[in-house]
Amino acid sequence: MAAAPLSSFIPKHESALPAPAMVPAAGGVTVVPEVKLTWLEGRPGAAATSTWGTPWPKGAVPGNQTFQLAAPDGNAVPLQSWPLAYWPDGTLKWSAHALAAETPAESYTLSAGTPARPAAPVVVADRRGYVDIDTGVIRARIPKRGAELISHIWRGDVEIARKGVLVNLRQERIEEDEEKAAPRDRFESDIRKVTVEQSGPLRAVVRIEGTHKNKRGKSWLPFTIRLSFYAGAESIRMMHTFVYDRDGSRDYIAGLGVRFRVPMRDAAYDRHVRFVGEGDGILSEAVKGITGLRRDPGAAVRAAQVAGTKLPDPATWDQRVTTRLQYVPEWGDYTLSQLSSEGFTVRKRTKQGRGWVPVDQGRRASGLAYVGGVSGGFALGLKDFWQRHPTQLDIRRAGTEEAEVTLWLWSPEAEPMDMRFYHDGMGQDTHPEQLEGLNITYEDYEPAFGTPYGISRTSELTLWALAATPSAERLGSLADQVRTPPQLINPVPHLVASKVFGGLFSPVDRSQPAKAAIEDHLDFLFGYYQRQVEQRHWYGFWDYGDIMHTFDEDRLVWRYDVGGYAWDNSELSPDLWLWYAFLRSGRADIFRFAEAMTRHTGEVDVYHLGKWAGLGTRHGVQHWADSAKQQRISTAVYRRIYYYLTGD
Amino acid sequence: MAAAPLSSFIPKHESALPAPAMVPAAGGVTVVPEVKLTWLEGRPGAAATSTWGTPWPKGAVPGNQTFQLAAPDGNAVPLQSWPLAYWPDGTLKWSAHALAAETPAESYTLSAGTPARPAAPVVVADRRGYVDIDTGVIRARIPKRGAELISHIWRGDVEIARKGVLVNLRQERIEEDEEKAAPRDRFESDIRKVTVEQSGPLRAVVRIEGTHKNKRGKSWLPFTIRLSFYAGAESIRMMHTFVYDRDGSRDYIAGLGVRFRVPMRDAAYDRHVRFVGEGDGILSEAVKGITGLRRDPGAAVRAAQVAGTKLPDPATWDQRVTTRLQYVPEWGDYTLSQLSSEGFTVRKRTKQGRGWVPVDQGRRASGLAYVGGVSGGFALGLKDFWQRHPTQLDIRRAGTEEAEVTLWLWSPEAEPMDMRFYHDGMGQDTHPEQLEGLNITYEDYEPAFGTPYGISRTSELTLWALAATPSAERLGSLADQVRTPPQLINPVPHLVASKVFGGLFSPVDRSQPAKAAIEDHLDFLFGYYQRQVEQRHWYGFWDYGDIMHTFDEDRLVWRYDVGGYAWDNSELSPDLWLWYAFLRSGRADIFRFAEAMTRHTGEVDVYHLGKWAGLGTRHGVQHWADSAKQQRISTAVYRRIYYYLTGD
Repeated sequence: MAAAPLSSFIPKHESALPAPAMVPAAGGVTVVPEVKLTWLEGRPGAAATSTWGTPWPKGAVPGNQTFQLAAPDGNAVPLQSWPLAYWPDGTLKWSAHALAAETPAESYTLSAGTPARPAAPVVVADRRGYVDIDTGVIRARIPKRGAELISHIWRGDVEIARKGVLVNLRQERIEEDEEKAAPRDRFESDIRKVTVEQSGPLRAVVRIEGTHKNKRGKSWLPFTIRLSFYAGAESIRMMHTFVYDRDGSRDYIAGLGVRFRVPMRDAAYDRHVRFVGEGDGILSEAVKGITGLRRDPGAAVRAAQVAGTKLPDPATWDQRVTTRLQYVPEWGDYTLSQLSSEGFTVRKRTKQGRGWVPVDQGRRASGLAYVGGVSGGFALGLKDFWQRHPTQLDIRRAGTEEAEVTLWLWSPEAEPMDMRFYHDGMGQDTHPEQLEGLNITYEDYEPAFGTPYGISRTSELTLWALAATPSAERLGSLADQVRTPPQLINPVPHLVASKVFGGLFSPVDRSQPAKAAIEDHLDFLFGYYQRQVEQRHWYGFWDYGDIMHTFDEDRLVWRYDVGGYAWDNSELSPDLWLWYAFLRSGRADIFRFAEAMTRHTGEVDVYHLGKWAGLGTRHGVQHWADSAKQQRISTAVYRRIYYYLTGD
Repeated sequence: MAAAPLSSFIPKHESALPAPAMVPAAGGVTVVPEVKLTWLEGRPGAAATSTWGTPWPKGAVPGNQTFQLAAPDGNAVPLQSWPLAYWPDGTLKWSAHALAAETPAESYTLSAGTPARPAAPVVVADRRGYVDIDTGVIRARIPKRGAELISHIWRGDVEIARKGVLVNLRQERIEEDEEKAAPRDRFESDIRKVTVEQSGPLRAVVRIEGTHKNKRGKSWLPFTIRLSFYAGAESIRMMHTFVYDRDGSRDYIAGLGVRFRVPMRDAAYDRHVRFVGEGDGILSEAVKGITGLRRDPGAAVRAAQVAGTKLPDPATWDQRVTTRLQYVPEWGDYTLSQLSSEGFTVRKRTKQGRGWVPVDQGRRASGLAYVGGVSGGFALGLKDFWQRHPTQLDIRRAGTEEAEVTLWLWSPEAEPMDMRFYHDGMGQDTHPEQLEGLNITYEDYEPAFGTPYGISRTSELTLWALAATPSAERLGSLADQVRTPPQLINPVPHLVASKVFGGLFSPVDRSQPAKAAIEDHLDFLFGYYQRQVEQRHWYGFWDYGDIMHTFDEDRLVWRYDVGGYAWDNSELSPDLWLWYAFLRSGRADIFRFAEAMTRHTGEVDVYHLGKWAGLGTRHGVQHWADSAKQQRISTAVYRRIYYYLTGD
């Protein structure tokens, strides 16, 4: 929930609420409970960072309480904490916390106390023209003007990535003539404002605001990027939010992405490309492969390349290979394209102007790419990569001194993002005619109301500046973190005891047959919608997270094409159903379903700019189609649970 | 094997060989065996047509023998027969036969005798400007000049389809600049020659030759279309062959398809669109849906629309629906796009200029589309639709008086077909340097030899002119015929006894442990390659049917990027291995694997035009890449088994 456009509905952390005076609990003695935190999807297999919120019962915790964190062995774990909300009596209601663990523990215990400080805290240097942030492992420079969100990422003295920009391809119109191809304009990020929101010791957050601008100075698509850095971490979390500021009648997104340049220092046979497909499936390529050749360079040489480690000196290889290395092609360009939820393709070519060669295909890619070499490299990943199709990962010029990697949130190979209204009004020019329409399709229609102007989308990316090409096992762990970012959660009894969110939930209770029957029914309903998402393929850039309103029992499909019966847009508050189901169960699958819905409904179904900013759109065939623009869709009640649980 | 470019390697049926004088078998008495024919994939569930070949032992059947066909109940079944090949002694070696069955029998017995004639034979009228063909159920007009392959298809007095053309979008160059979009030229079929190859009584075949031509008169991509008509059939089989006549440095295919117009006569709520997805999964849509509305028109009305049958008069519906029908959108445009082997998407929109709405997604579409209404409609399907991706089915303007349907063999939404050579030569300018390259990548390279000029592809389509919108069950049967066209086959003992193809095979024999072990090993090898096709996704327009040459045991992938170790292009004669495996087993899965390989290697790996016409290309990274152009790849030995078994 890092989206700036949403901030008007949510109390801003740190600054929104004044810190109250401490209020002692009843009896004058403050007894802060100990809270045992666990990982939503189990202990991460690699270094992990996480931010979360913990609630406290009314009157239990002073407003200015400090906290400490301990591992199961009792050792203190560095922690950063800040308040999120207070009870009316001034005691703390929600605290937020950040953790950065090189080797995550199974669980942690949060309690009152003095936090341990990280051995090397994250250091923020806010200069006139840029902000430098040093995690102790990597260092990033964030310019305050220009196109580059991150101009350099160093690891020690090695520059791992540079020139990080947002990129957008705009198409003025959607061509209906199959002979015509609309030209595309490239827009890049144009930074307007850089704000340090947090500056350590464990977590630093920088907010970058701006728009996408082309060479002629035309701007659109305002963005808010939040970069989070953690002490000791080699990764950067990037929350990417943009607002669509057109009405659907012109200017279409033909590509939207994040692009970095990656210096290539190693010999071509020591350069590597990786894509993570489904599960642990990894495409492992060297820019210049030395396996499978007609002559064998030697087992140690082959083994090193497959492992991604530095090859022995070519002088030590079988010289029948060494002397002919110039005739082994270098493959510099790679593309993984996920144009549907069901399939992705991978292709490569030696270089620009040469023919693409198909590499392989798969079903659902994890959205993680790596390019680099034995002296360091750059990985980046997008959460919900296949669910948010059409997406794409491009690596270019890996055979030259500077590769380029682009993570496309909207693939330039897909049809342009079509934001046009779906019908011509069908003659509903007057209110009586519109009422007749409502009475048959359940759609509110008024000319020009069905506009996407002001809807938004937030994407979660992670960037890694790695010291060397990662092993397959490590890459798999990074992919896990892309698919399900590590998230610490509170135990259900503590959530219940804290009586937050109105105290309107109790733990899962199967102690009596009647109660067990209710739990079975709740499980069935969740499982039903979970399976419907998969069966009906409720995926896609704008749609993922939403469900449909009503089933068509004649056609045996959901009424995706019947006015007000199509996309649900929070109708009947499924967001609340899902979040309370998580609060009382702690189930990861429910959390992720609720998370996707919260993102969808808060971002896509709600206007963040324009005349309807602050209102949402009623259920319909397109998320922005219905003419009823209402507060009930945009209400913070649907978003706050996610916000407090993640502290973010 | 209807491809004209291949005909130089194959004796043409009917005309290529002179009919010899009859030669009596030993003893002067001709004893023609009875042959029991069965269906390759079991009895078709709907009306089926099939052409096949049957072999005869040397000396057994007179060269001018006539044949009869009987159903299991002994009833005579109409048959058309013609000779394919003779033994040196003049006796018949291979006869070809055609069957058209409204209700196919489980099996048929072929024997010497006088054929039954069809109740209504197919009638061919070869006029000055066109050929008219009447199957007794449908009538088609085939002009001899212009763009239209089929100008009209009537069923009785009802025109079901019209203006059938080939369509091609050409892009002069592949743009490397992401801001530029290369314009596309539309080319349509330009007919040069129409030949009636067979004219009944049971089967008529018309060959149409021409090129693709644009408005400025520029021509490329020569094509040969063969249309087969069967007595009593409502379908037309279309074999679509084209030759790629560019060297890969300019002119790319951005779309290649077959397009028909379909007159729409029925009310919008009586018009239907169907796509068959995977298995029996069918997308059923009415142009104007009357289910799922806010008011119920009545159960009978809803049931009729779901069934695709004519709706009751709107005067009989609940008038709350009837009076508001104008406010129910009409959905005129539909697209099913299969851009990878793993996933397809379906979307629709009300009409041009309006926003597309996602409908659903799936994995592997069957390639069958229908558009029409209760008074008749048009279906068309492409065999190996998902295997030959990127493919697409477009229906346009179904809300107007004339819909358009396009079956894309190459989807215009995919990247243009990239025929460029894959590397820049890497300095292999002299023969000694080229030899060094061969010694490390096993690739023969010579500048300009790696050209696709003259390679070809044949696609199998079926068109149906239907009296009404088909039921889901019937549509499923049509899809079965698209996926696996009905094919009659000979019993293995008869194939063995005929001693054709050198007599180099014996039936599967597990009678002794040693023989069983050999059979197990053969089964394992076939299953291994069958699974590799699926695991490695050896699919795609040009690639489907081929396998890879050598595995990389270090990377655990096939050496798809290592010169001569990549695509197999018939190296070590896998075509023969597969066909002999079929001949001795009768297994359908082996037949289909061999069929795909025969098509691939004969069409793609062999030049049909240009300086290397008649030669094939040695194994390599691209099917046309290697500089060794050889007769061993183009040899008829690899193709003749398929030709004789299918008689086609």
